[in-house]
Amino acid sequence: MRFFCDNAAAVHPRVLDALGRANTLDTAYDGDRWSQSLDAAFSALFETAVAVLWVPTGTAANCLALGALCPPWGGVICHRDAHIQNDEAGAPEFYTGGAKLMLAEGPGAKLTPDGIAAVAGAIVDDVHRVQPAAVSLTNATEYGLSYRAEEVATIGALCKAHGWGLHMDGARFANAVAFTGVHPADLTWRAGVDALSFGFVKNGGMSAEALVFFDPALAAQARRRRKRAGLLLSKGRYLAAQLLAMLEEDLWLDLGRAANARATTLAAAAGQRLVHPVEANELFLRATPAESAALRTQGFDFYDWAPGEIRLVTAWDSNEAVVAQLADAIARL
Amino acid sequence: MRFFCDNAAAVHPRVLDALGRANTLDTAYDGDRWSQSLDAAFSALFETAVAVLWVPTGTAANCLALGALCPPWGGVICHRDAHIQNDEAGAPEFYTGGAKLMLAEGPGAKLTPDGIAAVAGAIVDDVHRVQPAAVSLTNATEYGLSYRAEEVATIGALCKAHGWGLHMDGARFANAVAFTGVHPADLTWRAGVDALSFGFVKNGGMSAEALVFFDPALAAQARRRRKRAGLLLSKGRYLAAQLLAMLEEDLWLDLGRAANARATTLAAAAGQRLVHPVEANELFLRATPAESAALRTQGFDFYDWAPGEIRLVTAWDSNEAVVAQLADAIARL
Amino acid sequence: MRFFCDNAAAVHPRVLDALGRANTLDTAYDGDRWSQSLDAAFSALFETAVAVLWVPTGTAANCLALGALCPPWGGVICHRDAHIQNDEAGAPEFYTGGAKLMLAEGPGAKLTPDGIAAVAGAIVDDVHRVQPAAVSLTNATEYGLSYRAEEVATIGALCKAHGWGLHMDGARFANAVAFTGVHPADLTWRAGVDALSFGFVKNGGMSAEALVFFDPALAAQARRRRKRAGLLLSKGRYLAAQLLAMLEEDLWLDLGRAANARATTLAAAAGQRLVHPVEANELFLRATPAESAALRTQGFDFYDWAPGEIRLVTAWDSNEAVVAQLADAIARL
Amino acid sequence: MRFFCDNAAAVHPRVLDALGRANTLDTAYDGDRWSQSLDAAFSALFETAVAVLWVPTGTAANCLALGALCPPWGGVICHRDAHIQNDEAGAPEFYTGGAKLMLAEGPGAKLTPDGIAAVAGAIVDDVHRVQPAAVSLTNATEYGLSYRAEEVATIGALCKAHGWGLHMDGARFANAVAFTGVHPADLTWRAGVDALSFGFVKNGGMSAEALVFFDPALAAQARRRRKRAGLLLSKGRYLAAQLLAMLEEDLWLDLGRAANARATTLAAAAGQRLVHPVEANELFLRATPAESAALRTQGFDFYDWAPGEIRLVTAWDSNEAVVAQLADAIARL
Repeated sequence: MRFFCDNAAAVHPRVLDALGRANTLDTAYDGDRWSQSLDAAFSALFETAVAVLWVPTGTAANCLALGALCPPWGGVICHRDAHIQNDEAGAPEFYTGGAKLMLAEGPGAKLTPDGIAAVAGAIVDDVHRVQPAAVSLTNATEYGLSYRAEEVATIGALCKAHGWGLHMDGARFANAVAFTGVHPADLTWRAGVDALSFGFVKNGGMSAEALVFFDPALAAQARRRRKRAGLLLSKGRYLAAQLLAMLEEDLWLDLGRAANARATTLAAAAGQRLVHPVEANELFLRATPAESAALRTQGFDFYDWAPGEIRLVTAWDSNEAVVAQLADAIARL
Repeated sequence: MRFFCDNAAAVHPRVLDALGRANTLDTAYDGDRWSQSLDAAFSALFETAVAVLWVPTGTAANCLALGALCPPWGGVICHRDAHIQNDEAGAPEFYTGGAKLMLAEGPGAKLTPDGIAAVAGAIVDDVHRVQPAAVSLTNATEYGLSYRAEEVATIGALCKAHGWGLHMDGARFANAVAFTGVHPADLTWRAGVDALSFGFVKNGGMSAEALVFFDPALAAQARRRRKRAGLLLSKGRYLAAQLLAMLEEDLWLDLGRAANARATTLAAAAGQRLVHPVEANELFLRATPAESAALRTQGFDFYDWAPGEIRLVTAWDSNEAVVAQLADAIARL
Repeated sequence: MRFFCDNAAAVHPRVLDALGRANTLDTAYDGDRWSQSLDAAFSALFETAVAVLWVPTGTAANCLALGALCPPWGGVICHRDAHIQNDEAGAPEFYTGGAKLMLAEGPGAKLTPDGIAAVAGAIVDDVHRVQPAAVSLTNATEYGLSYRAEEVATIGALCKAHGWGLHMDGARFANAVAFTGVHPADLTWRAGVDALSFGFVKNGGMSAEALVFFDPALAAQARRRRKRAGLLLSKGRYLAAQLLAMLEEDLWLDLGRAANARATTLAAAAGQRLVHPVEANELFLRATPAESAALRTQGFDFYDWAPGEIRLVTAWDSNEAVVAQLADAIARL
Repeated sequence: MRFFCDNAAAVHPRVLDALGRANTLDTAYDGDRWSQSLDAAFSALFETAVAVLWVPTGTAANCLALGALCPPWGGVICHRDAHIQNDEAGAPEFYTGGAKLMLAEGPGAKLTPDGIAAVAGAIVDDVHRVQPAAVSLTNATEYGLSYRAEEVATIGALCKAHGWGLHMDGARFANAVAFTGVHPADLTWRAGVDALSFGFVKNGGMSAEALVFFDPALAAQARRRRKRAGLLLSKGRYLAAQLLAMLEEDLWLDLGRAANARATTLAAAAGQRLVHPVEANELFLRATPAESAALRTQGFDFYDWAPGEIRLVTAWDSNEAVVAQLADAIARL
């Protein structure tokens, strides 16, 4: 009964089926008909012309985006708790050629205009200091908060004013869209986002994420970098097919809603234990060691986030009966 | 009727089935039971303790290996026609942090001790010159030749004498083993190879190659670099399962033999047209533009390698009847 | 009447004379007799066998050292206010190939075992997190504090226990030695320092700093990197001659003492205005905008460090009469 | 009696004097009045608005230029015998972030349109191949040949047609200008050169080269990279002063002519021994081992370039009587 993370959830049957249907000879790399239809499919979803690259991991999507938005001698403002800072083993530095991550504060791992300004304002504009070139925010955040469209737009305006690029790490973009209920376009390009790492793997995919460039001109360089990074699989159709299966009839959004609903069930049980509002599929609960042990004894697996704090993550395939059991167990603590 | 390349062939049913069987919750990244059993499975195959990393592409395997064997300020001796030089978009330079590829000559894209010595001998040992640190050979070569175990061993001894690492790009390792009929160990670590990119994708896999370190100490660093390069998929079990399916009952070797057999059929028909001996699953034929056109008119697809020269590649799934048709068509030219 | 920084002070006449004496034909790069005698001269000073490279800047010295101590996928723990973090334009990232600086807290820009432990302790040891590989401290610090030998030794022991390298940015090493009165060996290798950026330019040199490796084995790689970074001047004798002139009769130490003495004079006048103890040649004073303006009106130039805080730096050539005037002006504020 | 290389020649007295005159307090880095006057001084020389950065080595100048003209995933076409390929320890790869040098053939280390086209023509324009982004030529070449203005212009036109940048490594630019007798502008920007490494060190300077950008927009990025590479000396006035002293009354050109004149004297004596025409200050002579030994016995020092071939280099300060002796000795061989 795993609530450890959504990153190892099962693959949705429709995604798996798509692999079987793609199992026929076609052109290599991204020349096949599945890959070639990605731009159109995502452009339809986002209601604007986008360029889309499949990549096998979210780290790859994030770092190709950062490489497109920040030169080696620049900086990327992100939250102190951002995945790109803490969980990607230095991949941003590798892909950008040594750019510096500049760490901002903000509640719930959310960037705020003030937090960004505090970082940027402390940097004298001379050749001795690395200058910010981009901002990266995570939506939903590492603490399960979802940005409102207006929040993104405010940051987008700040970026535009400074000439910075804006990247969104959307490993849990589906959860954020599901929670806020707004159109994907409003959370992204209409709010000033230049590049989106649109996550599918945590949401029922197997091995394909979508790197979406709202300025298609950025994609040409990223295509070269994708190859140069060893990320251009020769049988790309098996990645593209996953993404297309996810877009079909908005499966991605249904799955995001399903995961969120399970988290909401748990949140109701957790009540005052919640450290952060539950706006996606992650819960952070206050729990004593004895309480944690009690839950584990009942067979629930989760992450010890910090002393006295545990993290639970639901997924599209979290069994509803098990979720109900867990909610009950939490309520009884 | 595609003989363009083996890199987009279909996925073998046993590999596809393995994906379905892996579609259950397990630990993320390479903590799952499939990934955890790779070292043992490959150690059994190679009859020595090896450390194995799954990666999604051959370029990734090659360049993680080169990064482990060559510092940023070093050089990698390879053939002028090597895949790492011509077809990886600068990935070796990216992964090594700027090492220099040093191009050797040799017939059929094969490295020879003399070719290596000609490169290395021209390099004065001072701080102004990049010094060789590693050798990389491709087996089977880019022209479809297979190294004999003794040939590898001679190069291995040369490397050892100079303190260089030895990497084998085995995108078509199965074909080389099938052709030479020797034990995989004899073609690799017993001949001085430190790291092998063991290719499966061209041979019926979907999205997983094996990077094999014969010195397991090299693997620790490579595991960090794999993550840092965005290559550590969170659902690694779907990659590991492909590799394990391939190893089971030596499926990989059967598939390599199948592809080779089809190439042999074509080679017999090609006769004097052959530019290189056929020792794997690639054929390079002399063909006038009219002859090429004639083949294309009959529905055969292939690569125009050079003026007056075409390349045909067979795969595990090349239809035997079609191969017979093509052989016939070639013979009739 | 410049107290802005010591980094643009005049060159000491003995250094300038040394350039004239070196103005004769000799071997290029570091093959000349001046360069060839550096190891011996610095080994005598440090009472142990060291390997020394001249470089034209302190940033180059720092970053070659960091490159020798930290792999691209590693981290360097340094103070939040360290020069390598704030004033080198990303050079550490460039030279290391993308290592991450990990920022520790500590009063007066001084690293403490607790500050280091707070950084390191928050890092889970898995492949997702960049792991610390080295520590870099600045002596004297960016706020003009000097480490005691015991303080360095405690940090050195911590590094040894973790297998981390230890680098000292000694842009103002002379001032620290002068202030503490201990032997240079006690502040460095006897306390666990692996590499020292021994600064001379701020202390009366023109264009040469010494990168000192206490483990000479580290120097071989650094010599290659120095060339690769475009730092190996062909007429190296003019750099080596500067360093030798500085070592002769401990000129470097006399000049450090001279700069410190002037700072002490100013410190006495500043009294309660001092933000940090004065343990080298830098003073940080509380001063209202009106007070700053008053000093500037009298012709004194300095750095507005922060709102209500100014920085004054003395140098070996700060005119004593001018220093007395400034002391008087400060006292009268 | 050193004819080994010009890279360790003495410093011209007017350059040394300039250092003494600069030995006064001024602003650090390149804020001093010498550095600030460089743009104007070089713009006057080149009859167009240029942006100039002092750097301590020719390798630094070359590689900052390449970094400005070529992205990490691009290629630089240069001659197989170019200094950037053979004598800079991988600095181009370091500074560009891993670009690939693409080696062209051509007599006397000279690039030709045909040689360039042969390299570029073999590169398919897809994401698998590194694409050329710039051309770098050396003037005078590594074999002492000087490009005519028309030759540069032809290459410049080729670059423009392909959208490639054009860099000139002018470590011996003075010698080329002196030999061809044309205006520096005609050899550079009027012929399509984007960036020039204008060498002074081999020509009587001490530690300063000029990196000249004919498109000043390229300089802003290069200024950041210069700092990031540890090349921004704090006492930049001592570098700028060298360059200004060299420009004054065209000292650089007089010194180039002087070195060339001495080479011409030797060339006349060498006659049929010359491997290449002498168009600068380098001579390559056929000489048997016995002949080489005979010259060495007479006290002449030089470079054994290849079996049966020696290299002699004259410098601005080669003693004329010694040159006459050497000419005589060569004639008598």
